[in-house]
Amino acid sequence: MPLIQPRVLKGFRDFLPPQELMRRAMTEKIERSFRSFGFVPIDTPALEYTEILLGKGGGETDKQVYRFTDHGSRDVALRFDLTIPFARFTAEHRSSLIFPFKRYHIAKVWRGENTQRGRYREFTQCDFDIIGSDSAAADFEILLMIRNTLESLSGKISGITIRLNHRGLFNRFLSSLGLEEKSVEILRHVDKLAKIGRDSVEELLQSSCDQKQIAAILDYISLGQEGDFDTVLEKLCSITGEGEDIQRLKDLRHFMIEADICSCFKLDPSITRGLDYYTGVVYESFLDKIPGIGSVCSGGRYDNLTGLYSKDPICGAGASIGLDRLQAALMELQSEDQAAYGEGEAAYADIAIACQNIQDSGKAQKLAEIFRQKDLHCEVFLEEKKISAQFMLAEKKGIPWVIIPDYEQNRFSLRNIKSRESTDNMDLTAVMAEILPL
Amino acid sequence: MPLIQPRVLKGFRDFLPPQELMRRAMTEKIERSFRSFGFVPIDTPALEYTEILLGKGGGETDKQVYRFTDHGSRDVALRFDLTIPFARFTAEHRSSLIFPFKRYHIAKVWRGENTQRGRYREFTQCDFDIIGSDSAAADFEILLMIRNTLESLSGKISGITIRLNHRGLFNRFLSSLGLEEKSVEILRHVDKLAKIGRDSVEELLQSSCDQKQIAAILDYISLGQEGDFDTVLEKLCSITGEGEDIQRLKDLRHFMIEADICSCFKLDPSITRGLDYYTGVVYESFLDKIPGIGSVCSGGRYDNLTGLYSKDPICGAGASIGLDRLQAALMELQSEDQAAYGEGEAAYADIAIACQNIQDSGKAQKLAEIFRQKDLHCEVFLEEKKISAQFMLAEKKGIPWVIIPDYEQNRFSLRNIKSRESTDNMDLTAVMAEILPL
Repeated sequence: MPLIQPRVLKGFRDFLPPQELMRRAMTEKIERSFRSFGFVPIDTPALEYTEILLGKGGGETDKQVYRFTDHGSRDVALRFDLTIPFARFTAEHRSSLIFPFKRYHIAKVWRGENTQRGRYREFTQCDFDIIGSDSAAADFEILLMIRNTLESLSGKISGITIRLNHRGLFNRFLSSLGLEEKSVEILRHVDKLAKIGRDSVEELLQSSCDQKQIAAILDYISLGQEGDFDTVLEKLCSITGEGEDIQRLKDLRHFMIEADICSCFKLDPSITRGLDYYTGVVYESFLDKIPGIGSVCSGGRYDNLTGLYSKDPICGAGASIGLDRLQAALMELQSEDQAAYGEGEAAYADIAIACQNIQDSGKAQKLAEIFRQKDLHCEVFLEEKKISAQFMLAEKKGIPWVIIPDYEQNRFSLRNIKSRESTDNMDLTAVMAEILPL
Repeated sequence: MPLIQPRVLKGFRDFLPPQELMRRAMTEKIERSFRSFGFVPIDTPALEYTEILLGKGGGETDKQVYRFTDHGSRDVALRFDLTIPFARFTAEHRSSLIFPFKRYHIAKVWRGENTQRGRYREFTQCDFDIIGSDSAAADFEILLMIRNTLESLSGKISGITIRLNHRGLFNRFLSSLGLEEKSVEILRHVDKLAKIGRDSVEELLQSSCDQKQIAAILDYISLGQEGDFDTVLEKLCSITGEGEDIQRLKDLRHFMIEADICSCFKLDPSITRGLDYYTGVVYESFLDKIPGIGSVCSGGRYDNLTGLYSKDPICGAGASIGLDRLQAALMELQSEDQAAYGEGEAAYADIAIACQNIQDSGKAQKLAEIFRQKDLHCEVFLEEKKISAQFMLAEKKGIPWVIIPDYEQNRFSLRNIKSRESTDNMDLTAVMAEILPL
């Protein structure tokens, strides 16, 4: 039979151990952070009824959706985000959930996007939301989670900045210009500021606004550059006057001060989030060393999560980390400063046991269990090879230590792979003492 | 617009927090066990070229595959196992892998199976393999991993038994009966022994064998009932004579004795594994308290993983844990002995901070961070409600402690949700001392 060429679909990726080890380390940190806040995981099917995912109308994203007819003649599709499945999930299981419901969901999604823009057709989202609470404390908790989670991921590599704004405030400002009818399209244009620059936004706005309105909008969205949170907040308030939105921002500022975590938050009226469903505070997060890649975690507050499936609205606030973009950014920074990220995380194991006689493999595994009980990852080499070849194998796998046992005498030789030095005739206690500070 | 009924596809499932917390705890234990052996993770796309997944021929499983034409007119399908993607992956990335390659892959797969037999159309497999080594030490390592991993999952609930056999031995036995040509179909029939019983196997065998042959086969596969590993091995050897397969089993037995892990392994000539590609030692694993659900982890040795995609054969040994079946079994046993499994794992958090004044939410989060730094999961309640309502919320979420802070005085009242007792006027050190032994 002729051979089949092994290959993956365009826009899809294999993850080899070095990348996948990094991805697993990242999702473990993300999950640890989410769990530390008492958030709990859920999961939903990869495949759903197309009607559920796309609603009854049709839109821009529809063309990107992997959609087909299954064996039972059902119109089905692969999920393209985690928000819509969460809305469906909430409407369906409402009576079984405990509100306010704090959940996270880390999973793959699929979009048949144009891959030329460096986009992938399969990627991982890490969503976290609090639903069923309109409290400012909920908005604050999401912001604190973004901060803690991103810092646990990038702490050694880059500072982070979280830019926030309030949709309601922006809308009130547009109303004052007589532009309330055109707010959706203006929000979409302004959302592109960081990506396309001020001049291009000005050009886009010409289809909806006159020169005076454009000037006012551009002034307004530039306020974020002009000082600290309190200064910007005061200026915004002087333009639009007091309101619920201003009060919400003041509450958040008060919480930040009392929790002593002000430094990474900026009030930025140019942050709007393109998506229609946000109604309150919105936010985007940037790595200070590489802001150009765009937001690595975005979100906001919405009024009505479950509108398509239920008459009772449920409000909430949440955000999503794009794992792939964040990993790409961290890898780019890592190559500048190799040692900073994931030290030891790319190693296949902490220690390897050399194989000098295959008949001793039972003894080798028994010895390995002692290290495993101490939470060390211990690989047992499986083939009789020259000891230099076994050292080389350890080096390739990033394993820092190789132990060469003399099972008869219960003595051990320990090789430090990096320094290429060996210590002979050790007992197990001495080996442990050498390895454990690792 | 009319509402859309929220529902999932037949054979697909949502996982609510209690189930998903248990699943996450299970996969964390599985992954920790795999990593402790120096195994490393990989990942592959959910969607592949149909040609890759199904080969150029057509088979039984083909009908179950979710297959469609994508936007680029490609014939694509969702993976239905993790073995074929691993074969494709290995052929494609061979030069980048370090051999012997020890990898694991925990991921979902999809099959449009008949759901009436209690099967799901989306389920999770946990595969682990060593490829590029023909060593008995590799077979032994896979067996030890099965033991350690299953014990870490079911240790408190049920013992485990791992039944093993050698395909080559069985084939030699069939040859001695003049049945080598019919070995594939006979192996398939014998594989059903545990499921359908001796009489039904006898009936199935009548299409391939005469009465004398059937009697010999039934005697042979019953040998496993008759004693310990050594006794059965001796009997098998007296029937088929010495050979590489007998030697491999002797090696494994030698390793088990030296590693001091004999108790859970049984030599059982009725274990054949239905799949064609196994060529060496094969194994199935059972929970002692609920063997009727079948094997929860099966595998074996194969000669040629990458045959469809490459001319150079790669041998290996590996096994797969069916997470869904194992979870169902553990949940069934758990209801008999509620406290045994996952104590505390179903709790949403370890401690909650009550909300008496929403304006103190910044202080509450600052306090929560102290607990989070100690690796405790700490939820901050977000709404001013009667304290009794907040205790009830904690109880629903399985959170054992609620702390009611007096931020002015820096004193705390601590509520034990289970005993319904509160201790007032504590300092933070006292609170920690009470909670941490948890």
